[in-house]
Amino acid sequence: MNNNDSVNPSNTQQTVAKRILTGIKPTGTLHLGNYVGAIRPAIESIQDSDDEAFFFLADYHGIIGCYDPAIIHESTKSIAATWIACGLDPERVTFYRQSDVPEIPELAWILNCSCAKGLMNRAHAYKAAVDANKETSKVAKEMHGDMEIKNLEDINYNEFDDGISMGLFDYPVLMAADILMFNATHVPVGHDQIQHIEMARDIARTFNFRYKPLFTEPSSVVDDDTPLLKGLDGRKMSKSYGNTIPLFGDGNPQVSAEKQMHKAIMKIVTNSQLPAEPKNPDDSAIFEIYKAFATPEEIAAMRTQFAAGIGWGDAKQALFDKIDSEIAPFRARYQELMANPRELEEILQMGADKARRHSRKQLDKTRRAIGIRPLAKLK
Amino acid sequence: MNNNDSVNPSNTQQTVAKRILTGIKPTGTLHLGNYVGAIRPAIESIQDSDDEAFFFLADYHGIIGCYDPAIIHESTKSIAATWIACGLDPERVTFYRQSDVPEIPELAWILNCSCAKGLMNRAHAYKAAVDANKETSKVAKEMHGDMEIKNLEDINYNEFDDGISMGLFDYPVLMAADILMFNATHVPVGHDQIQHIEMARDIARTFNFRYKPLFTEPSSVVDDDTPLLKGLDGRKMSKSYGNTIPLFGDGNPQVSAEKQMHKAIMKIVTNSQLPAEPKNPDDSAIFEIYKAFATPEEIAAMRTQFAAGIGWGDAKQALFDKIDSEIAPFRARYQELMANPRELEEILQMGADKARRHSRKQLDKTRRAIGIRPLAKLK
Repeated sequence: MNNNDSVNPSNTQQTVAKRILTGIKPTGTLHLGNYVGAIRPAIESIQDSDDEAFFFLADYHGIIGCYDPAIIHESTKSIAATWIACGLDPERVTFYRQSDVPEIPELAWILNCSCAKGLMNRAHAYKAAVDANKETSKVAKEMHGDMEIKNLEDINYNEFDDGISMGLFDYPVLMAADILMFNATHVPVGHDQIQHIEMARDIARTFNFRYKPLFTEPSSVVDDDTPLLKGLDGRKMSKSYGNTIPLFGDGNPQVSAEKQMHKAIMKIVTNSQLPAEPKNPDDSAIFEIYKAFATPEEIAAMRTQFAAGIGWGDAKQALFDKIDSEIAPFRARYQELMANPRELEEILQMGADKARRHSRKQLDKTRRAIGIRPLAKLK
Repeated sequence: MNNNDSVNPSNTQQTVAKRILTGIKPTGTLHLGNYVGAIRPAIESIQDSDDEAFFFLADYHGIIGCYDPAIIHESTKSIAATWIACGLDPERVTFYRQSDVPEIPELAWILNCSCAKGLMNRAHAYKAAVDANKETSKVAKEMHGDMEIKNLEDINYNEFDDGISMGLFDYPVLMAADILMFNATHVPVGHDQIQHIEMARDIARTFNFRYKPLFTEPSSVVDDDTPLLKGLDGRKMSKSYGNTIPLFGDGNPQVSAEKQMHKAIMKIVTNSQLPAEPKNPDDSAIFEIYKAFATPEEIAAMRTQFAAGIGWGDAKQALFDKIDSEIAPFRARYQELMANPRELEEILQMGADKARRHSRKQLDKTRRAIGIRPLAKLK
């Protein structure tokens, strides 16, 4: 059996090489935590394996939560440039923009018809939004108050869905289409996304049983080994905490990306110990971040310097130098790509061509399975 | 303003010629009631006007309720052949298969993101399915019994959604995409579908307000003038009553379509009045059906024959002759098309080409409005 597309899902484990699929939502710019936690390990793990890999910019997911066309467009550009600059090899990986593969939304519709609505009712993101509405809505107040609900008619279900779009509700089906289109076997995800992979398996199973076994049931892969990068305040680095170090700057032409990174690092919160006082590295965000970039020998040397009382300013400068030695060449390449979007677009078009070699075939098989095919062969 | 695609929706009424859009779900074969109630008036109304018209085979709606690929395929063929045979002019009308226009499901995803979930909660078809579940499910029994519901957590919403797919739940959005893709101004519908047109207007409004006024708000057109054809038992002719007269037969090669129609007509229920007894035409399904095919003079003549005591057998034969004089040439053409699906496929491909001249442009504008466009122009 040498054709992955037609593999019988029940034999998947033994006969098929791994096919990894990773989606990247293009909303906003990236920080050092994204680099250490997602980009670098993803690129390294592909370089070190023979697995097939599909990476895509999930712009049709991006529009669910972001209605600003400029942000969607700029983020797509910036995030594509970031991954390529950091070493993603578009010859080795199929790297494409989701919206360049029209077979994906078409498959999503077909899969809608093999997906129970009840499954979507249970999706975390949807339930979280409903819970928020229950807490805040007027209806919720009545319900959590003294009012007794004797009839189903007393409940206004619609208010629970305030501000929730069909895009948000239906997006696990689009995600299933992203995955099943390429018969991906392994999907690296965070813990909050495991459920969506389960849903993709469920949808695949329903379709395979009802029509024809066309879709491989994917497995989720959760990376618990890569530690989360600490932010400026020692908490996990996250946009929502406002404690990030920008990876390639925020696009502000007044301040160079290098200076932005330097400035952020100089803001890392420390205690008030003076230079020459011995310091505890295991209590320092500087040391924690340093560890994510240094070799074991360098880490040991830095530990010694902490014990010897390195000043906070010097430690921050050492951290900057260390990070910059890794990031500087990527930054230069990033700036080159951002200044020359033509090259980026060519890379994405090459990726779309590769992706569509699969997606056209898979969609054609899927359409035939449900009864959609030409009435006669025209030459 | 001579470009319908970019018309400002608020000026629609004055400046734009009518653009009619009609979808036909390809599930099952057609009967005389479909012909009299839908096919004939639709074709006549187009012939008599300068309106632009789009007719499509809604196979991506068909798969919501029908999981048999053979039925989807055969119905698509048979229903396409029926409309062409009955005189739909594919040069005059843009006649296409929904699944030949991949821009439609892609637009449906985009519109999902501009459609409140609460809107879909209120859709008739969905609510009817939920109501059925409420009546029959175990949960419903508890709820309609003595149990008091004090907490929201006591309610298992999922059981209300038993057997309901995301296809059923989301289909008003696909229908909105069908309509908005072509900026249809008028959509002929039955009373039960008026709500879906309202939903398409609502979705168009949300998108137009949020991004750019790209979509015309469609109006529903309800034809209350064409009377419903009576069936064999005097009730409305309907597949669910089992009282239909087949239009072009059921495809059984043992019995000719003409004989099938004759046989059905001979089964029309009558009272037990003998030949020569004067009969009340206004109490007879035979006369009712006759009226749908005869000229005023012929109708008056038949009325006289009833008064003169025409026997039921003779009246049925006269009815058959009348219907057959209209249907026979269509039946011959239908059989020719069914025997030569290549011609049908060519007609549908011509329609797809015409439809996609619009849909490609409209989707491109829509994508640009939400921020999805190439990063650079490649030549």
